[in-house]
Amino acid sequence: MEFGLNFFPVFAPERKSARDYYREVIDLAERADRHGFEHVQTVEHYGSPYGGYSPDPVILLTALAARTERIRITTGAVIPAFAHPIKLAGRLAMLDHISDGRLDVGFGRGFLPDEFEWFGVPMEESRRRFDEGLLACQRLWSEEDVKFEGEFHRFGPITLLPRPLQQPHPPIFVASASSPESCAAAGAAGHNLQVVPTIVSHETLLEMLDAYRGAYRAAGSPAGGGRIQVKYTCYLADDRATALERGAVFEQNYIDQMAGAIASWASTTSSAYQGYEKLVDKVRKYDFARSLADHKVLAGTPAEVTEQLEWVRENCGADLTVSLQLNPGYLEHEHSVRALELFAAEVAPRFTA
Amino acid sequence: MEFGLNFFPVFAPERKSARDYYREVIDLAERADRHGFEHVQTVEHYGSPYGGYSPDPVILLTALAARTERIRITTGAVIPAFAHPIKLAGRLAMLDHISDGRLDVGFGRGFLPDEFEWFGVPMEESRRRFDEGLLACQRLWSEEDVKFEGEFHRFGPITLLPRPLQQPHPPIFVASASSPESCAAAGAAGHNLQVVPTIVSHETLLEMLDAYRGAYRAAGSPAGGGRIQVKYTCYLADDRATALERGAVFEQNYIDQMAGAIASWASTTSSAYQGYEKLVDKVRKYDFARSLADHKVLAGTPAEVTEQLEWVRENCGADLTVSLQLNPGYLEHEHSVRALELFAAEVAPRFTA
Ligand SMILES: [Ca+2]
Ligand SMILES: [Ca+2]
Ligand SMILES: [Ca+2]
Ligand SMILES: [Ca+2]
Ligand SMILES: [Ca+2]
Ligand SMILES: [Ca+2]
Repeated sequence: MEFGLNFFPVFAPERKSARDYYREVIDLAERADRHGFEHVQTVEHYGSPYGGYSPDPVILLTALAARTERIRITTGAVIPAFAHPIKLAGRLAMLDHISDGRLDVGFGRGFLPDEFEWFGVPMEESRRRFDEGLLACQRLWSEEDVKFEGEFHRFGPITLLPRPLQQPHPPIFVASASSPESCAAAGAAGHNLQVVPTIVSHETLLEMLDAYRGAYRAAGSPAGGGRIQVKYTCYLADDRATALERGAVFEQNYIDQMAGAIASWASTTSSAYQGYEKLVDKVRKYDFARSLADHKVLAGTPAEVTEQLEWVRENCGADLTVSLQLNPGYLEHEHSVRALELFAAEVAPRFTA
Repeated sequence: MEFGLNFFPVFAPERKSARDYYREVIDLAERADRHGFEHVQTVEHYGSPYGGYSPDPVILLTALAARTERIRITTGAVIPAFAHPIKLAGRLAMLDHISDGRLDVGFGRGFLPDEFEWFGVPMEESRRRFDEGLLACQRLWSEEDVKFEGEFHRFGPITLLPRPLQQPHPPIFVASASSPESCAAAGAAGHNLQVVPTIVSHETLLEMLDAYRGAYRAAGSPAGGGRIQVKYTCYLADDRATALERGAVFEQNYIDQMAGAIASWASTTSSAYQGYEKLVDKVRKYDFARSLADHKVLAGTPAEVTEQLEWVRENCGADLTVSLQLNPGYLEHEHSVRALELFAAEVAPRFTA
């Protein structure tokens, strides 16, 4: 099992300035790089405290690439529905070179009605735009004189500059798949997978991982795929009480900010997002203690978090890379640093040694 | 007079990999930062050796911001016609924070038919899209709950996250203005100005600078404006013969690559770009020796380049910032480094002391 860091800024701007947040993330990434973590990743969200400090993951990731040497640089994710493929493919190719070939690209479909509204994109098109955008990037990265005739984008012939450093293109992850069917599709296509255990039941998670691995093997285990990242928020401290206290505060903060970001789901239904109209209720029922018992979040001392991760390894597989959010909410930077140093010294060696 | 570095990659990919190019630019920027240069800047172009290694200036500039401490970080330019304002404003705001408030934003209109074609944007709309995109960024940066009802973009209410660090927003430059009228408009609006002396006659250049300064003063010299950057390619070496030899090679390379990028102007006319159909002929007639005599390019020993810059100062004004391309074409990195070190040691002190 390997470990990475996931940066998902969820807090109101009054809590922490963007300047301080980015500086702290750069510091954490430099430390993770020195400690041999596998990747750093961040998200794409707009206009609300739920991820809004990251309207473009490629920007912050470029700063992290410029300040690190070995760690992989991962989008988690970019949303093709909101981008022109020539721009998206070009910017990611630049980052692939700047990072010296350390880029992994997670592509996501998006799920916030406000974001689709701001970009004037109907949510019903999200799946088709995701598929088309991913295909367009793949072709721009790997072919010359690309003539693209999609439903949403038509262009070319054009030969992308720069072409990416990794050949034929950076590894592709399908982000936040939430059904066994979408995981199977990712595996069959030879892509890698990013999953978020919090948003599905434990049974569904295991079905998703099985479906992915089965489809990937059935497709002949194509080169460049087969990697799985699972994302966990982790409250790690020297003592249990402190860890649980932070968990209670920042899980509630997360729920509050997410509730704000998804509020429009209460008055939205979309055939492309079945059941999402119940998301607001579901989020409001979140309970930290139950989530901890259900292995959807990590919290405690190094020994306790080690035990929780052993459960993940036994139940979900030793081939996973666990992407840890060690700076949840507006946690003070010194506490995130301590969590990272504790994790590197006392938890990671039990799994990577 | 102050000095900055302009990075405009003009060479076929076979000449230099994107990986090497970005590494060299980072090294030059770190050196310029230590030597007290005023800014680094780069360009936005697509799909051809004429600038195509820079489909997104914000990416490379973010790497430069992460690796420098004092130098200003300048887009030269971004093209709003090819971007959604929420994305463009958000990414630039991120860079403003990552650079700790060192961002200057040059906005450009674009002039290559192929690029407009790839993005499906009619060239006739370029002026209106430029104006609307610049206005949308300004509003997103400085207002809350922005409800934008433009000709090309409608969105909101949205409050941008992050808002920029510099208040009310990063300084704005109007890039590559090429007529006294457009310079006057930039001055009247309180914007700063980026000009490229090579593309206009000496008389027109002086008229443009006069028009800009006059309009800026007439508008009451609004805060945040009044700065002028002029761009020069500079061939600087220990001896005159080497400098001129490089000038001959790389000015020809520039012309050849530009001729390729603008080839479609030969079969394009646009009411929005009067006279551009003659651009191909004009470019083909370029002559390095005449350009040097006409003060459109700098070349020679430190003493000679000093003299050429004294002419610029006397004729164009001591309030200029000169943006130097010291790594033209596929010049070997060690030669660019030598030029930079020579400039910092023997030329710059004559003007900034
Ligand atoms: Ca490792
Ligand atoms: Ca490096
Ligand atoms: Ca609760
Ligand atoms: Ca200075
Ligand atoms: Ca710094
Ligand atoms: Ca010639």
